[in-house]
Order: sequence, then structure tokens, then C-alpha cells
Amino acid sequence: MDFVGANILSVCQFERADIDRVFGVADAMAPYAQRRKVTRVLEGAILSNMFLEPSTRTRLSFGVAFNLLGGTVRETVGITASAMAKGESLYDTARVLSGYSDVICMRHPQEGSVAEFAAASRVPVVNGGDGANEHPTQALLDLYTIRKELLANGRTLDDFRIAVIGDLKYGRTVHSLCKLLCLFDKVQLTFVSPPELAMPEAVVEKLRAAGHKVVITDQLEASISHVDIVYSTRIQEERFASPEEANQYRGRFRLNREIFTRHCEPNTVIMHPLPRDSRAEANELDTDLNEHPGLAIFRQTDNGLLVRMALFAMLLGVEELVDDYACPVRWHSRRSPV
Amino acid sequence: MDFVGANILSVCQFERADIDRVFGVADAMAPYAQRRKVTRVLEGAILSNMFLEPSTRTRLSFGVAFNLLGGTVRETVGITASAMAKGESLYDTARVLSGYSDVICMRHPQEGSVAEFAAASRVPVVNGGDGANEHPTQALLDLYTIRKELLANGRTLDDFRIAVIGDLKYGRTVHSLCKLLCLFDKVQLTFVSPPELAMPEAVVEKLRAAGHKVVITDQLEASISHVDIVYSTRIQEERFASPEEANQYRGRFRLNREIFTRHCEPNTVIMHPLPRDSRAEANELDTDLNEHPGLAIFRQTDNGLLVRMALFAMLLGVEELVDDYACPVRWHSRRSPV
Amino acid sequence: MDFVGANILSVCQFERADIDRVFGVADAMAPYAQRRKVTRVLEGAILSNMFLEPSTRTRLSFGVAFNLLGGTVRETVGITASAMAKGESLYDTARVLSGYSDVICMRHPQEGSVAEFAAASRVPVVNGGDGANEHPTQALLDLYTIRKELLANGRTLDDFRIAVIGDLKYGRTVHSLCKLLCLFDKVQLTFVSPPELAMPEAVVEKLRAAGHKVVITDQLEASISHVDIVYSTRIQEERFASPEEANQYRGRFRLNREIFTRHCEPNTVIMHPLPRDSRAEANELDTDLNEHPGLAIFRQTDNGLLVRMALFAMLLGVEELVDDYACPVRWHSRRSPV
Repeated sequence: MDFVGANILSVCQFERADIDRVFGVADAMAPYAQRRKVTRVLEGAILSNMFLEPSTRTRLSFGVAFNLLGGTVRETVGITASAMAKGESLYDTARVLSGYSDVICMRHPQEGSVAEFAAASRVPVVNGGDGANEHPTQALLDLYTIRKELLANGRTLDDFRIAVIGDLKYGRTVHSLCKLLCLFDKVQLTFVSPPELAMPEAVVEKLRAAGHKVVITDQLEASISHVDIVYSTRIQEERFASPEEANQYRGRFRLNREIFTRHCEPNTVIMHPLPRDSRAEANELDTDLNEHPGLAIFRQTDNGLLVRMALFAMLLGVEELVDDYACPVRWHSRRSPV
Repeated sequence: MDFVGANILSVCQFERADIDRVFGVADAMAPYAQRRKVTRVLEGAILSNMFLEPSTRTRLSFGVAFNLLGGTVRETVGITASAMAKGESLYDTARVLSGYSDVICMRHPQEGSVAEFAAASRVPVVNGGDGANEHPTQALLDLYTIRKELLANGRTLDDFRIAVIGDLKYGRTVHSLCKLLCLFDKVQLTFVSPPELAMPEAVVEKLRAAGHKVVITDQLEASISHVDIVYSTRIQEERFASPEEANQYRGRFRLNREIFTRHCEPNTVIMHPLPRDSRAEANELDTDLNEHPGLAIFRQTDNGLLVRMALFAMLLGVEELVDDYACPVRWHSRRSPV
Repeated sequence: MDFVGANILSVCQFERADIDRVFGVADAMAPYAQRRKVTRVLEGAILSNMFLEPSTRTRLSFGVAFNLLGGTVRETVGITASAMAKGESLYDTARVLSGYSDVICMRHPQEGSVAEFAAASRVPVVNGGDGANEHPTQALLDLYTIRKELLANGRTLDDFRIAVIGDLKYGRTVHSLCKLLCLFDKVQLTFVSPPELAMPEAVVEKLRAAGHKVVITDQLEASISHVDIVYSTRIQEERFASPEEANQYRGRFRLNREIFTRHCEPNTVIMHPLPRDSRAEANELDTDLNEHPGLAIFRQTDNGLLVRMALFAMLLGVEELVDDYACPVRWHSRRSPV
């Protein structure tokens, strides 16, 4: 894949070599994200951050990643703030906005809309989530995190075990992650969900065709005993036919310190795409694990900056120049290392 | 007109010589807007972008124009986000905001409000649209586009033919444009609209007093046959007394490829203030013209950046310094030339 | 108090020496806020401005203060724009956001929420208002203004007279200011309010324990005759049991030019936390005083920039470096001196 000037619309664009390149550049971004150095390589460049659905984390992560490379961000939030409310087509919006910008990130509630937008844009477009369809940078940051956490335990993406828990039917995050895992070897996956929310057959087929071992179950505790990674997601209880049916599963897929200590290997890593719902009725990943060293959920969001910085640098062709425009940080930062 | 420190509130402020100066500076901004160069001349300056009505294009255009000169933008969007919701007067808001800013752009739903705001401001104010009243930078970018498109065909603003189509009664954009055209010589104007939505008599009088030839009609096809510019605007069908009455006009003022090919001279230029409503029930400027070389609607928005950059540079007195703070662009841009 | 890396959550954190240091740094910020110089000391640093309640003045003041030091601002406005709407805890939001930012300003409708957020943050947090609880930077800028205005009349914070008028029961601004005044000597305070909206006993006790003289009254005119500062606030008439009861007080606590001229010493200074409600039914501080030299309300907001710049510089440990990264202003500014 040639990154310079490209759009990032789907995880399907990526070959294994592409992933390796992105992750190599992401590693090199750490000194900047951790405020050990500042770079101004993109000084004068403009990102248009178009978020036509509410988002804090992803929107800020894109914006901050661009700022950390020295670029400037202009934002539009919410569909009502937009000319689209007056019947403007995606084509027109793209033609106009791309005259203002060097790169555009877009979240849009409709599947396929970001690709339609990108087709008319004169500058690279990054999909920040198009409805139930794709959210490729989330899948990349998840994979990057798995790789980094495995490395810390002396393992690699080519031979590891992961349990994926929660709503596997509707979660676009885990679908995209599974597609990326097909690029690697010897992954053992256990999918833990209520039968109603099981991983779609097509995803499972693809993983098996890639030579991976897949187990499907609705038993949490047995599934997390011999894995390197536990990837927890929200069970959206409104998916069930009745509150009684939902009650039946309520709490059965929640991970907390007691369950972790009793069942998991000590250096098992816990991930979650965030936001997690910490209200008592949800609480899929208990806050009593907040100080656990294996809890990687905030390392995930920190890694999101690195991956997005890498993508911006590669789309704009400056990944080799970042250090040429570096200078030391002048201010105090009490930030702990990523 | 002395631009340094001035407000831009109305097209009536401009003499012909002022227009020429603004357009000369706008021409010089092209290398920066097209990312062939970067300038930091306004590094440290702050634009407050106050949009108390929804807007994507105009808001972003002002913000990006300021960023492209090296300045920083702080934004407020929507009346509810504002202290005005607590009964604060425009006077107070202006006094406070102008202590924060080097220049302020404001859109406000009420006619005259931006002038009232500007009277209390300690820094220059640019009117980004005050209700049905004025939107001077839109008129300037339209005129700049006409001039540029005419030049490409070897003509000038002093002898050309334009057809203006659509809702000419309520459209503030075309009223302001007509006022500016009075500064030039020998313009032939054809106003095409339903009689109910005809150009106000006062505007027509002014044009005739300036020596221009004005034709008023409700026949689209004959009107576009011998013109240099077709300027299409939205017919707001809700303006009519009944749906039946609206139906009578529905489609009669729509321009599409077939009509263009059959009636227009080949190098006729098509303009539109945008956003255009591309939903089937509106579609005043058909998308089948999207790839037509005469379609100048996206060149218009690109030109908007140039004109707004020029105004900011002139209000802040740096138009002669822009190139002194220039440096090359370091990143890839697949942007096509404006 | 050690400012580097600290949170600013409450006025109770400040000793007298801390106040003196903040105000000394704020004085040194004037050339930058008045655009006589530009500094880039925080180039590359990122402020996350999280305003989960509407605010224009405070939000922009924080943002502009950070920009004036050369830093970059990323903003989130409104609770619906936030992952919090999906049940995310303050802990999670803080862990995530502090991975993106060098400092965070937060306004939140719930008392205590900003402190809870700060406890989980990896970077300094500044309270921009947490419900009825605290708004420490407003109290600091009020105190800074009083000091500056007194100095202009040859007096100091250690021996002055102030009348505080309006809703003294619910106004967090005046409560915080009173706490700060306890750090100084010989202040004479007159609290003017309807009995229903009197200053809480605890605040009065604290002031008396600090050796200050406190008078409590509901008579406006006698109270403002021999004071250095009149600090007016809004009487929120919705606080009363009935419209009749409110009517009884309506207008009794309004200050206008006639009352000022008849009762006040000529160099008495008028302050107000803003926004003031200038609608006829409120109008607690009459607009006929707008041109009065003693009206300090816009000097207050100008001072807010200085105090917030000082706090950012001190939290990030760059207050000694600001001038090292200074350069002249290149553009015209018609701004009058603060």
C-alpha cells in the first residue's frame, strides 16, 4: 500500500507489511506523545475534524495527534452545525472541505458515507467511524496494543491466545480487529458471548481459513484461564427481547478483580475499546481492577495517539522528517511513560 | 478606505479602488492557499470566530484563512453556548471578547446586530452574516470569482453579461453582489425568477442608475443563451402560498447538463453561493454538471479563502509582510490547483 | 504551595505568599495580553478545555490565555458531546484525557466533580467551576483587579473598604472572594442583600475571625457612600417565593449613574463578575455607567487573561522562560491598554 495521499477507510486495505510499517512509525512517535520532544514538522498543515456524531475520545485523539506533529485542527461537531442539514450532498461537502484542508477525519452515522465522501475529496480522508461499518484506526490501535503488551511478555502477534467477551454480534470494533488478525499466524481465539450476540459466522470462517483456532462459548470463567489477552466489550442489554432475558445474562460477562485473580494467569492483559459503562447496571469491566498492572485500557488510548500520529505522518509523507523538526520540551510534564 | 483596524460590515463600504486592492492581495495569497508555501506572519494573533447560527462553510473558511496566515482561532458556535443566553448585551460581549482577540468574525441571526457589536469592540469585526441583511465577504468572493473566470476568457468586470436565477427577493447574497456590480461599467444583467420572487425594485433602480442594462424575466432558457456567467440560487419553495403554486415553478429554474448544452455558450461559467440543496425535491443545480469545466462553484469556495486571507491581512496591516515569513511546504498535498 | 504540576481546585489552597507570587507573574504577562509582545514558550503544549456546561467567557479566557503563551487548545463543549453520556466515569475520562494533554481545564455541573476528576488525572487540572462549589480563577482575577484598582488610588489589599451587593447566599463567586480576603488585613466589608439572600453565617464568621469589620444590611444607598470598591452581582429573582416578593426588591439593588453620582466617592471602583443581565427586568448594573472611568468590569475580564496565563505558566514551570521566547508583534492592534 502506498500511504502518501491515500485514504484510510477500512482495515481491508492493509497487508501485513503495511501494518509493520505503521507500527514502526508509531513506535518512533513515543517521545513526542510522551512530551520528551516536540516536533513542528506539520506546521501550517490543517486537519478538518468532521464529527457528525458525538465523540470525545476519538475526536480528541485525532486532533491531538495532528497537533503533536505541529499541525492545526479545525473542527465541526454535530450534524445540525453542518450545511448537510440544508440538503448539501456528501460530494459537495467533500469538494468544499478539501479545498480548506490537508487531511480530513470524518465520523458519520451512515455506513459507507465516509467512502462516498472520500471519493469526492481532493485530500486524504481518514474514517473515524461510519455507523456499524468500520472504525479502522480503533482496530489498528487495538492490534498495536496487543503487539506491545505481548512483546513485554516476550511473545509476538504470530503465536498468542485471546478471549474476546461481550456483544460480538454488533461490535464493529471486534469485527475489524478479527479481520486484521487474519494477517498473522497461529492465533487462538475464544469468543465469549450470549448465543444471541455471538460472533457472525463470516468472521469465524475467515479466521479459520487463516489457520487460526476458534472456540465459541458462553462460559466466561473457563475461557479466560489460559490466554494472553482478555478483550472485554460492552453487552448492550437493550439488544435482548425482554428485560427478563437480559437479566439472565446480567453480570455473567463482567470481569472483576476476584474473577481475574481466581482464573487468569498473572500476566494476562485486560483490554477494552472504551468508553466502558461504569454505571452499576453495566460495569462490564469492574473498577476494582483500575490499579491492576495488567489493565491496559488506558495504554490503549495512549497508543491511539501513536498510531494516529503515524498515519498522519505517512499520509502526508513526512514520517522521515519528524525528527528533523524536533526540539526539546520546555515545560514540566508529570505524565508517566506510556 | 483605510483597511487597517477597520470593520467589514457591509459591501457599501467599498469603493472600486478598495475592491481592486483586496483582489490584488487575494491573488497574492494563492501560493499559501494551495499549499505551495506556508507563512507564519500572524503567529500569535487570535481570531474569535463567533457563529451564533449554524454554519460550516463560512465558519471554516474564516478559520482556515486565519490559520493559513499563521494565526490561531478560538470558536464559539450556537447561541446556547453563549453568555448571551443569560441576557448579556452585545455591548458587553463585544467589550469582553475584544479583550481576548485581535480580530472577531461574527454571524448573528438579527439584522444590524454585528454592526452594534462592532461599535463596542476594541478590535476589527468582520460580518459573517447578520440575518437577511449583509454577508459582505460572500459578495466579495463572488465578485472575485466572476473577475477571475472572466479573465480566463479574456474579459473583465467592466463589460460582461450575467444571468441571476432563483429567489431574487429574499437572497441577501445576490442583493449584495448587485450593489458591488454598481461600481463597475457596462454590466448586462438578466434576473430570472418567478414574479413573486423578483429582484426588489430598489436594487434594479440602482443598477440602472449605474448605467447597467437590466432584463427581468421568468423564462430560464432564453436568458442563459448569451451570458458569460449563470449565477444560480435556491428557490425556497416554502415561500409560496400553496404547494400547488410551488409545483407550478418546480423545476422551471433548475439548470442541468442537457439545458446547459442546448442553450449556453460553451464557455459560460456556472456559479452558486452554496450550499446547494441536492435532494431530489430541490436540486436547483443538477449534479450531472459536477464534472463540467464551466462549473465554478468549488472554485468559488476556494476563492473564499483567498479573499478572507486578504481581508485579514489588510485589517491587521500585514499584507506586505506575508512573504517575509514564508517557508516551503514540507508535506505531500494532492490538492489540485485552484 | 508548589505550583509545578499542581491542580487548582479551590481558593483554600492559597496562602498569602502564593497569591503574591501569582499576581507578580500576572503583572509580567501584561505585554503579551496587550499584544505588545508575543511569546512561544508553550509551543507544542496542549490544553484540553472540557466545558460540560455552557460558558463563553471563562472557556475563551482559558483558551486564549494558553494560546497567548504559545500553546494549543483542544475543546469539548456540552455533556452530550462527551463519552460521559454513555456512562463513562470521571476516572476513565481523566485517565484518557490526561494522556492527550499537558493541562486540563474543566467546568462541570456537579460539586466536587472536578476534584474527583483531578485525582485520576496524570496532568494538572484547573477547576473552571464545579456547580455551586468553587470557581477559583474567578476569585483570583477579582482579587487581582481589586489590588490593581486600589494601587491606582494609592491603596493596598491590606486596608480597604468594599460593598458587596446582590444575591450573597447563592453566589459562589463572592463566597470564594471572601475566603481569599481572609488572607489580608483590615478589610471593611458591607454586605447588601435582601435578608433572604444574605451572606451565609459561616463566611461572615470567617471574615470576622480574620479581624475584618463586617456590616450586614439591605440598604444600598447608605452602603456605597464610603467604600473603595462596589462589587455588584445579579439578584436572581427566581429565588423568591412569589413574584410579589421579588417585586418588592426589584430595582432596590440596582446601581446606575444617578445613584453612583449622588452617593459614591468619585474614584469608587465598580466591579461585577459578569455576565450581567442587561435586560430591562434585571439590569442590576445600569448601562448608563458604561463609559464611567470607575467601571472596572471589562478590566476584570482583561485581568482574567493575565491571571490565567500566570497560573498556566506556573503549573507548567515556565514562568521564568516566557521572555526568553518573546518576539515583537508584527500586526496592527487597535487594542487600548488594559
